[in-house]
Amino acid sequence: MNALLLKEIIRNAINEDSGYGDITSEAIFDKDFEISGMFIAKADGVIAGLPVVSAVFEEIDPRIVCSPLITDGTSVTRGTKIATVKGPVKPILAGERIALNFLQRLSGIATYTASLVKLIQDYPAKVVDTRKTTPGLRMLEKYAVRQGGGHNHRFNLSDAVLIKDNHIAACGSITKAIERCRAYIPHTMRIEVEVENEAQVREALAAKADIIMLDNMSPAEMKRMVELINGQAIVEASGNVNETNIVEIAATGVDIISVGSLTHSVRALDISLKFDA
Amino acid sequence: MNALLLKEIIRNAINEDSGYGDITSEAIFDKDFEISGMFIAKADGVIAGLPVVSAVFEEIDPRIVCSPLITDGTSVTRGTKIATVKGPVKPILAGERIALNFLQRLSGIATYTASLVKLIQDYPAKVVDTRKTTPGLRMLEKYAVRQGGGHNHRFNLSDAVLIKDNHIAACGSITKAIERCRAYIPHTMRIEVEVENEAQVREALAAKADIIMLDNMSPAEMKRMVELINGQAIVEASGNVNETNIVEIAATGVDIISVGSLTHSVRALDISLKFDA
Amino acid sequence: MNALLLKEIIRNAINEDSGYGDITSEAIFDKDFEISGMFIAKADGVIAGLPVVSAVFEEIDPRIVCSPLITDGTSVTRGTKIATVKGPVKPILAGERIALNFLQRLSGIATYTASLVKLIQDYPAKVVDTRKTTPGLRMLEKYAVRQGGGHNHRFNLSDAVLIKDNHIAACGSITKAIERCRAYIPHTMRIEVEVENEAQVREALAAKADIIMLDNMSPAEMKRMVELINGQAIVEASGNVNETNIVEIAATGVDIISVGSLTHSVRALDISLKFDA
Amino acid sequence: MNALLLKEIIRNAINEDSGYGDITSEAIFDKDFEISGMFIAKADGVIAGLPVVSAVFEEIDPRIVCSPLITDGTSVTRGTKIATVKGPVKPILAGERIALNFLQRLSGIATYTASLVKLIQDYPAKVVDTRKTTPGLRMLEKYAVRQGGGHNHRFNLSDAVLIKDNHIAACGSITKAIERCRAYIPHTMRIEVEVENEAQVREALAAKADIIMLDNMSPAEMKRMVELINGQAIVEASGNVNETNIVEIAATGVDIISVGSLTHSVRALDISLKFDA
Amino acid sequence: MNALLLKEIIRNAINEDSGYGDITSEAIFDKDFEISGMFIAKADGVIAGLPVVSAVFEEIDPRIVCSPLITDGTSVTRGTKIATVKGPVKPILAGERIALNFLQRLSGIATYTASLVKLIQDYPAKVVDTRKTTPGLRMLEKYAVRQGGGHNHRFNLSDAVLIKDNHIAACGSITKAIERCRAYIPHTMRIEVEVENEAQVREALAAKADIIMLDNMSPAEMKRMVELINGQAIVEASGNVNETNIVEIAATGVDIISVGSLTHSVRALDISLKFDA
Amino acid sequence: MNALLLKEIIRNAINEDSGYGDITSEAIFDKDFEISGMFIAKADGVIAGLPVVSAVFEEIDPRIVCSPLITDGTSVTRGTKIATVKGPVKPILAGERIALNFLQRLSGIATYTASLVKLIQDYPAKVVDTRKTTPGLRMLEKYAVRQGGGHNHRFNLSDAVLIKDNHIAACGSITKAIERCRAYIPHTMRIEVEVENEAQVREALAAKADIIMLDNMSPAEMKRMVELINGQAIVEASGNVNETNIVEIAATGVDIISVGSLTHSVRALDISLKFDA
Repeated sequence: MNALLLKEIIRNAINEDSGYGDITSEAIFDKDFEISGMFIAKADGVIAGLPVVSAVFEEIDPRIVCSPLITDGTSVTRGTKIATVKGPVKPILAGERIALNFLQRLSGIATYTASLVKLIQDYPAKVVDTRKTTPGLRMLEKYAVRQGGGHNHRFNLSDAVLIKDNHIAACGSITKAIERCRAYIPHTMRIEVEVENEAQVREALAAKADIIMLDNMSPAEMKRMVELINGQAIVEASGNVNETNIVEIAATGVDIISVGSLTHSVRALDISLKFDA
Repeated sequence: MNALLLKEIIRNAINEDSGYGDITSEAIFDKDFEISGMFIAKADGVIAGLPVVSAVFEEIDPRIVCSPLITDGTSVTRGTKIATVKGPVKPILAGERIALNFLQRLSGIATYTASLVKLIQDYPAKVVDTRKTTPGLRMLEKYAVRQGGGHNHRFNLSDAVLIKDNHIAACGSITKAIERCRAYIPHTMRIEVEVENEAQVREALAAKADIIMLDNMSPAEMKRMVELINGQAIVEASGNVNETNIVEIAATGVDIISVGSLTHSVRALDISLKFDA
Repeated sequence: MNALLLKEIIRNAINEDSGYGDITSEAIFDKDFEISGMFIAKADGVIAGLPVVSAVFEEIDPRIVCSPLITDGTSVTRGTKIATVKGPVKPILAGERIALNFLQRLSGIATYTASLVKLIQDYPAKVVDTRKTTPGLRMLEKYAVRQGGGHNHRFNLSDAVLIKDNHIAACGSITKAIERCRAYIPHTMRIEVEVENEAQVREALAAKADIIMLDNMSPAEMKRMVELINGQAIVEASGNVNETNIVEIAATGVDIISVGSLTHSVRALDISLKFDA
Repeated sequence: MNALLLKEIIRNAINEDSGYGDITSEAIFDKDFEISGMFIAKADGVIAGLPVVSAVFEEIDPRIVCSPLITDGTSVTRGTKIATVKGPVKPILAGERIALNFLQRLSGIATYTASLVKLIQDYPAKVVDTRKTTPGLRMLEKYAVRQGGGHNHRFNLSDAVLIKDNHIAACGSITKAIERCRAYIPHTMRIEVEVENEAQVREALAAKADIIMLDNMSPAEMKRMVELINGQAIVEASGNVNETNIVEIAATGVDIISVGSLTHSVRALDISLKFDA
Repeated sequence: MNALLLKEIIRNAINEDSGYGDITSEAIFDKDFEISGMFIAKADGVIAGLPVVSAVFEEIDPRIVCSPLITDGTSVTRGTKIATVKGPVKPILAGERIALNFLQRLSGIATYTASLVKLIQDYPAKVVDTRKTTPGLRMLEKYAVRQGGGHNHRFNLSDAVLIKDNHIAACGSITKAIERCRAYIPHTMRIEVEVENEAQVREALAAKADIIMLDNMSPAEMKRMVELINGQAIVEASGNVNETNIVEIAATGVDIISVGSLTHSVRALDISLKFDA
Repeated sequence: MNALLLKEIIRNAINEDSGYGDITSEAIFDKDFEISGMFIAKADGVIAGLPVVSAVFEEIDPRIVCSPLITDGTSVTRGTKIATVKGPVKPILAGERIALNFLQRLSGIATYTASLVKLIQDYPAKVVDTRKTTPGLRMLEKYAVRQGGGHNHRFNLSDAVLIKDNHIAACGSITKAIERCRAYIPHTMRIEVEVENEAQVREALAAKADIIMLDNMSPAEMKRMVELINGQAIVEASGNVNETNIVEIAATGVDIISVGSLTHSVRALDISLKFDA
């Protein structure tokens, strides 16, 4: 992660939630006494976002000490103690909700990712994310996918090539589209092509695509394509993958399974910050 | 909504997704010909975010014309045409994913909100959101809740008072906490107190709290508290509300039901942008 | 106050005043020796802004130690020592003017507010500010009003409802305007209506407005309206209030007196930073 | 003025005042019908800030048409029509207060400046501002000074040299301080020295200072110094200048009179936006 | 290019050069009459940056019309007319220097790139840039390299893997370093290793590195390594490449030649904006 | 230098180069062990930018200790040790390239400036820079010119007057242009006029221009103009000055020689960061 970018995201979140100040705390607390508390998992899952939590409190007030008790990527059960926080009451209360909003969401992503990864653990396929992330939080959400044992697809439009139907139509053929890209892009990038049928797979192979994405094919079709491709390109499966169909897809022999719901439909992991009496 | 703030959120999203440019489109398209397409619902739900979609395309390239066919808050069924978009190919492809990321997420919020609102339509209680929103997107997510027929709780820490256990402990009593707040805050704000038992409810009433939040009480307890309060304060129910328990809660006679999952556990509504051949 | 927002305001001020560097200091000082100095009141008044002064020096150079000798809200007389500052000469000189610009302005606001509060100390009415603040400094100016013993009106357009003539005209009546607002806004907000005559007061009362603002009425009229309202709503007096008429207004029994000149016509309190020889 | 910087100042002001949206207008107006109004002076004065007003409305909504009827720098009397505004109701109401906050403040500065300029119209001295401006608004406030017939002193620490006592002490003498500056600074800048007595004036003259600032001298002393300097340097008078003493100071023959209160103690000019029925 | 990012770069440049306004133009021009002019090459070279020039004027004042007469990437000779500009005098003069600063620098990069590309036109090797770009201008400088017929290396640390000696030392071997990267990175990226000798080349090949960078080898050594690698990996030559040695390097058969001086030591192409009389 | 502005420039550079994180380091380093290294000159030159290097590492990670061994402005020979850096491996590698990009560029400017200054050391003329700087880096580049023994011209359009042909044409004469400027500008500024022939020089002198810029004159012409001006104004020579003609120009007796290539055509000084084994 880029720590500067993380700070910007956090500042943005703090300004959003603090407005011109926490009016309840201003009214109530005449002195800024110390409190301490504990982040505790209230459900089973995989934790992601502890460095974000620390950075939230650091940004709000450097006097706050936030100490993770586990590392990101750890599986926890309901009741597991995750981190302690200690410091002046006003900034801790001001940061509580923000820290939880990040931590619950990122842990939710890691938890769901881990559940899919586990489902296909007997197959070589990797679970990867997509660009279907929450606007403004992509760096964090892709980080959470990795903590759950998943892998990342391209970060954005500028760091990898993905040739889709509009591109193919504009060039007239997959072959020409790949040629144009190969002539243009950095030598550090691979070329991925989205295909819908066997003819397109054959053309992509002939044009030496590095990665072939099978879009919305049935498992049976996928299996046939994997055999056809036979290691000449990386094979990615894509399209409405979820816990009910991922095993069947992995069994086709594809290398990569991309799952939009890893980040577009996140169930927050239930975590609370319990203050010491 | 504040249109300037919306623009900042959108610029942030565009920079995140565009990086230093869409390398595939740069390689492929030598001319910037026109394309057109249609946003279509692929599942039943309530739409929210069409002004955001328009603003995304406007920000990416003012030559793009995006025309909503319905308004936010409309219930749609699978197959409903939502909006058209027309303009130069490169910026439309660059904006497609960003527009969908906003639209699907916000429509997911509106859809879930509407489903809860419908469940309790025979009761006077309002469904409201919380501060458990995605960092950076609170304005939009609270907007989506309204489109789904829900209402908003306070936007942030500075625009309403919510007295919790830490505040009460610091003051020694609910009574003193309310007094301090009343002496400090603008006359335009109400004072809300979070309570856990009958004694606290009685104290809050005596201190003339404007709103009493019943935190994690059973429906039976809630019902008793509603009778006790008897219209002297607005009554808010809070704590792990969802589709399975909201009717029972509404039946207790509370005025307000706040639901964190409206925004912390969003299932994106499936919507696609289909380009004309 | 939101400390992050304060930092942004201060950075903005430093960049404005420092440009690409303090050319006189760069030319003169080959070493960065230490100096120390004292902020001293050169007139009687109420101090506000010491945390801002500390934050200015902290932002310019964390090696500078700025120690307030009193707290904000303290009444001082000419000659009172307010704060000390000590550290490297270059950044202290670079921060001097900026710190004073904040401190003198905010203390000017607190001083004028305190003078009005004192004038009406025998009446229950509160002195409140308005949105007639200096663009970019509202958080600080409203803070200064509180230090002077005043109270705040709404912070901005999004955190409270104020129904004015245009709104009433668009709805057709005060009653309908209040109904629409009540159906739309968070339950944490109150509804204020600006009225010009008795008929409007009666309508606002009937519609259960929470706050009624008497706009530019004579004291006699205000008194009559206060009697009519008789505790059913909070009563706010507004319109060209100043030191010559505020007692008469307070004597009418209104609850709230809003005063635009608290922030729109500020006389800086004379304060200087005197360096030790 | 730098139009980009103006836009940034205005965006900042809009975000401050709009928060996450004008909740009253959102609740009330279901359609965005047109209104029109007129900015009218409610007191005599000199207008400054009309381009700012136009830019505020332009930034909020480009559909709004704001047409100044006079130009900045014009003297107006109570009742003078200043500008018209016409467009959709919601953004006009959202911009009204912001536009007035700028216009009233800047016109207040121009008005006070003009009054001082007029007082000394029989003398060659120029009225100039200082760095005692409102943090964040310096560009606008110095613009307003010019509209009132005044002139500007340096904009910030980087665009002119002003040698003060700390600098002199560090170098050991005015002579050395001037030498160091002359060796360091761009050839486009002049060197100004702040002096307190005749000996310092003589030393500054001998060292060929371009500008000599007489700090807090009595008019009699100033007069003597002006004669001593005799055109060999520009002479600036400084220190608590106001309407009661400026004529006496101008009569001493100084070239420049700098006045902090032009910007640090501004009385807003009363201006209102009256909507057409 | 990302047009939003370009705008930010340009706004930054305008604020830097305009400060609080063009004081000469403000003093001189009482009316904003129209002028027109022509950008003309004053030396032979390859033009890059015309969209930047247009965007500079658009950002300063949308009334300015800037019309390129050629496209980026065109070779020009001294005297070639490049673009016209027409509009109000003040903003055109304010934008002139900024536009030229971009255009001359980017054209300088394109020109030098094109000269190297031409030198090795008989070989298949591509000329690529490095991360040795001017801070803040990388997107533009890499664009200029492409306009000169060169290609880009990775944009930044996050979009491709480059394993260097510190990484190898930390892992213990090239093999382990490659394994770790392969297990971690997106499937869209290639892995590049920087090597210094034959043993390292052999290890990189065995570990199936996608790209092998020969760092500071002699042409003879490079030739041997190219033969050894024999198409199993892309071969990149790196280290103080310039016009005197690039042909010899290309003749070794490497695929890629990276040249830091393309962007770290740029000679601006002489271009002027000549106004019509 | 303005330290806050420096930080903004550096943050911008870090975000540009770090993207969403250094993927190679993330993959390789499981622990963040310490490394140390030395910045070493690989060519003779004058160093500038060490405070920038320190600030880069400070911004990336405050745990990094960067200790300059010399000060900016020092002449070094190939092999000179310039600074040490020590700290955690990941952020040091992330900052390495950015630090070098600044240091090499700024030292390149200082080196070339120093070479020109040395060439004319027997003449009183000063070498000054222009506004032909890299967009976004002007503050740093002008700083580097000073470290090389040069001086600065105006920083931007707002801090000095430079009257050119368009201004003269608009006013009708140099005399009128100077009059308008004198009536408008701060008394702290000088007025410079760009002239092309003797008639213009005579007019500028008569109008009491403070500085006369001889634009693109031959040395013989310059010499004649210097004699004509005879100390009544500062004389600046301008137009394609470089190492081949600067001595001849200095010999004409001009006071100031402005050189665009100081900043528009910079050859980076070769400097490397060598890590300890």
